[in-house]
Amino acid sequence: MQTTEEMSLTDLGEFGLIGRIRERFPAPEGVTGIGDDCAVIPQRSGRDTLVSTDMLIEGTHFLRRDIPPYRLGWKSAAVNISDIAAMGGLPTATFLSVALPADLETGWMEEFLRGYADISRRFGVALLGGDTTASPDRICLNVAVLGECPSGAARLRSAARDGDLVCVTGCLGDSAGGLKAILEDVERDADVQALIDRHYLPLPRVAEGLRLAATPGVHAMMDISDGIGSDLKHILEASSPLQDKSSGLPPESPLPGATIDVPSLPLSPALQRVCARLGWDAAALATGGGEDYELLFTCTPEAERSLDVPHTVIGVIRDLPGIEWRGAKGPVAGFDHFRKL
Amino acid sequence: MQTTEEMSLTDLGEFGLIGRIRERFPAPEGVTGIGDDCAVIPQRSGRDTLVSTDMLIEGTHFLRRDIPPYRLGWKSAAVNISDIAAMGGLPTATFLSVALPADLETGWMEEFLRGYADISRRFGVALLGGDTTASPDRICLNVAVLGECPSGAARLRSAARDGDLVCVTGCLGDSAGGLKAILEDVERDADVQALIDRHYLPLPRVAEGLRLAATPGVHAMMDISDGIGSDLKHILEASSPLQDKSSGLPPESPLPGATIDVPSLPLSPALQRVCARLGWDAAALATGGGEDYELLFTCTPEAERSLDVPHTVIGVIRDLPGIEWRGAKGPVAGFDHFRKL
Repeated sequence: MQTTEEMSLTDLGEFGLIGRIRERFPAPEGVTGIGDDCAVIPQRSGRDTLVSTDMLIEGTHFLRRDIPPYRLGWKSAAVNISDIAAMGGLPTATFLSVALPADLETGWMEEFLRGYADISRRFGVALLGGDTTASPDRICLNVAVLGECPSGAARLRSAARDGDLVCVTGCLGDSAGGLKAILEDVERDADVQALIDRHYLPLPRVAEGLRLAATPGVHAMMDISDGIGSDLKHILEASSPLQDKSSGLPPESPLPGATIDVPSLPLSPALQRVCARLGWDAAALATGGGEDYELLFTCTPEAERSLDVPHTVIGVIRDLPGIEWRGAKGPVAGFDHFRKL
Repeated sequence: MQTTEEMSLTDLGEFGLIGRIRERFPAPEGVTGIGDDCAVIPQRSGRDTLVSTDMLIEGTHFLRRDIPPYRLGWKSAAVNISDIAAMGGLPTATFLSVALPADLETGWMEEFLRGYADISRRFGVALLGGDTTASPDRICLNVAVLGECPSGAARLRSAARDGDLVCVTGCLGDSAGGLKAILEDVERDADVQALIDRHYLPLPRVAEGLRLAATPGVHAMMDISDGIGSDLKHILEASSPLQDKSSGLPPESPLPGATIDVPSLPLSPALQRVCARLGWDAAALATGGGEDYELLFTCTPEAERSLDVPHTVIGVIRDLPGIEWRGAKGPVAGFDHFRKL
């Protein structure tokens, strides 16, 4: 204990902290608690309740001068709806907490709510409650989201199996490209604007998630929020037999790993053109950049052939630890809000 | 719209902002959304799901140097569990979001979690998820809580009726007295320490709420977080026929009001002794101070006689608008996080 008290949160890292919280709060029997996109709570009705929550802090997740409030409202709801999509569930309701500086003009909040309402309406999600309070300076936001799925249908991160194909919906790296364009104040042609829109106005893959969860042979699933470099690691760690403490048996197979074919990562034409023009590394944006809110999933080759959801096969789960990034030009890293500080 | 965009949030106030959010996000049929202690979501199983969320910001709700992290952890969970108690529900799970400065020592968070775990265990509530992220400076916390109750059993703020008695559990003003003692750095004898403990380590009235909700004739209920001056107003406003937009009929009776007998407000012996010694106004602390987390409820006189929950009758709901504070020495006000800034 002595050593940890001397550690700072930067040393421990976001996932170290989550691990410590998880140790302290084991989930009750039959409930999926900390460590996936959502908690899964079985109900008497044969439906499971899905719950997730996300916090956005001014100065960490957004800069007030850079993001129009409409877009922040949209994104705040979108990233939470995406967590339900990531389980293959139907989002039903959100709860919004806002802490606002007293001198913030009311118009800012009106615009925020307009964006929040537009995406909520689009996905049929009700805002059912929340908290409004004052902040001394920075805007702080928290959204909690509820969803549901048939009993046992939620796709957990822990379900990846040896030989599964690794797949993604949509394209990767657009959001990271948009963020890079904002930070580097790049001239905004139509392509750059498209990437910025993808960054600010993500569309969660709810319909795709529902269809994937209804397909036998689709195993692990999550949404891509930190970048596949980091997110795939979460699937592998969660799917490790070492994580299966409930069985009490020694692991029968080693830690699972994956081989990812970097040249096959789906890149949008807009991202490819912007990267070619500005000399950016598209593959690095696709692997290391986050906030795509596409679905990353693993499935059997048979299931993959029958899928009616647009997707790209990017690799395979294998029986060797670690991720092999075949065709990568450099090291691949994900995003950690603590380590990046 | 022009005028509101020029308003600051201080002008609009916390409850003005909630009203605007509520207008924009009407609850679906059969669901209780924004405006009560919790949302009430009917399930297919014949149970209702209760949800609430609360945000705590360093500098608005607490000062890091004043509150030990164990107590902050306890209180963060307690105020949310109290929202479930306020509906007469059974709390089942919480979701904790924390944004932490990078230089915060890990020991702070360990202590916070120890307090959070201790009260969670006491009430059998699981921590099932959350979010951990970085904050540039201030600690930001958000807790979302889930609970349940039999279908239709939740006690809403809107159920007060003419002739109901107004009752409270426990004693009022201890928490406000404890806060005043902290802020004024009063010498800590056993009585002062007892008030400070009530401020930092509130015990939500879960068992009492469950029993009250199971008692026919118990109508409106809420927990006392802003002080009864403010909280009773919420019950009266919510119980106004003008608020009943679902019927579409003109209101049959005028806005309900209440008469509160200030000398009958329950005051703890510790608060009475501290107030006598330091010349504080105990009644003002009991009416205007918040964070008692006792239950404020209305019920028929018949129901009151049969109640097996310790309580005090402090007044009556009447057919005249406004609150008459009988025996009050001065004006009575509640707490508004925006207006107090």
